[in-house]
Amino acid sequence: MTHLKLTLAYDGTGLVGWQRQASGVSVQGLLEDALAHLEGGAVRVAGAGRTDAGVHALAQVASVSLSRTVSTRTVVRAVNMRLPHAVRVIAADEVDAGFHARFSAVAKTYRYRIWNGSVVSPFERPFVWQVAWPPLDVTAMQHAASVLVGTHDFAAFQGAGAEVESTVRTLHSSTLHETVPMAGERLIAYEVRGDGFLRHMVRAIAGTLVEVGRGRRAPEWMAEVLASGRRGNAGRTAPASGLFLVGVEYT
Amino acid sequence: MTHLKLTLAYDGTGLVGWQRQASGVSVQGLLEDALAHLEGGAVRVAGAGRTDAGVHALAQVASVSLSRTVSTRTVVRAVNMRLPHAVRVIAADEVDAGFHARFSAVAKTYRYRIWNGSVVSPFERPFVWQVAWPPLDVTAMQHAASVLVGTHDFAAFQGAGAEVESTVRTLHSSTLHETVPMAGERLIAYEVRGDGFLRHMVRAIAGTLVEVGRGRRAPEWMAEVLASGRRGNAGRTAPASGLFLVGVEYT
Repeated sequence: MTHLKLTLAYDGTGLVGWQRQASGVSVQGLLEDALAHLEGGAVRVAGAGRTDAGVHALAQVASVSLSRTVSTRTVVRAVNMRLPHAVRVIAADEVDAGFHARFSAVAKTYRYRIWNGSVVSPFERPFVWQVAWPPLDVTAMQHAASVLVGTHDFAAFQGAGAEVESTVRTLHSSTLHETVPMAGERLIAYEVRGDGFLRHMVRAIAGTLVEVGRGRRAPEWMAEVLASGRRGNAGRTAPASGLFLVGVEYT
Repeated sequence: MTHLKLTLAYDGTGLVGWQRQASGVSVQGLLEDALAHLEGGAVRVAGAGRTDAGVHALAQVASVSLSRTVSTRTVVRAVNMRLPHAVRVIAADEVDAGFHARFSAVAKTYRYRIWNGSVVSPFERPFVWQVAWPPLDVTAMQHAASVLVGTHDFAAFQGAGAEVESTVRTLHSSTLHETVPMAGERLIAYEVRGDGFLRHMVRAIAGTLVEVGRGRRAPEWMAEVLASGRRGNAGRTAPASGLFLVGVEYT
């Protein structure tokens, strides 16, 4: 047996997300099909985070066990040969049999990218949410984002259709970072690290932060939304294109 | 009359290049069609550099004259509304009637990007030339690249089918820069600034530099190729995907 931890990067554009669906191309499906050729039979992989349709990953993690002994080098080469260029295994490591990409994870980091300006770079278009106007107040957004750090019930930021036992999560950091990718244009990145995330949680937070950034709401509103526990009180779910799973941490 | 200098960024993937062709989508064609709507009639634009099929631009420059008086702000908005997302006008400036994007240009900068490693990031795939193996000797490549600085006859780096009076050009700088975009992978960028470039010149230089980087040729070979004036002596023409027109300078 070979127990593997696979790290993957993908451009989620046009994919139905991590998880296999009744129709459409999923990362899990592509990866399982590619591994099946190596295994000579069906394989089942577990993913650290179930990224939604259109969401990207810089370093998603999957775990899988193969019945044969195979080098990590061979796995990377053989699997990438069968995957489309938009999905790449960027690393493979041998792990203990007990390793599970999702249950062994202790922290995850997501990044949400907002293009704040009227002209989006052609190279960034698939990887941002454009908020053309007004110029967002990043200081106010940072105040609002800070409120989320710590252990809270994040029910107000959970998308419909999720079934989880608890909506309590702990966020370790929640910060904004601004750059100027082109003259007159701003790229605002929201990065959040925590022990776990609810369905659509980062995108709901991003949508709420933009309400604050637009000046429609005061930074203090974030605490009210959080305390209310009601999804209807938060901002809209920001588009998938701006979201990246940046990394997953294990002990 | 309004005389305009337009600065454009484009993802050249799938385009036939700057210049209008008998078939296929060109940047010039897209831009002229978009401007025709604003003008209410045919317009003709001049481009600073005739980027080939598949070549990208961070800041190509075009000049155009419109019969009506129109604000630069309106031009940017109206033209971008009609262009595909892969092509964007990122700036518009009013200029004197004598301004010509090509003939007024005093210097241009190009960048050629080489992904030196076995696993290409899905986000970089359309914007690099992958040289998977061996690890390139960037120091040797830099020695070879330095030889090109100055005024020389660059006939050895001119693609077939070009008709120019002189193949003498002056390069002001010719440098390599290495980064590590992903663990175990290298991105090597060759940047060159000069008063003008021959057809396929940067891609022929890039192909020649890679021969040196692979260790197939010594850095001194570059001077021999240059002196020979024969295209057959240089390296292959590197793929269009790795090339970017970075900018155009005017006095």
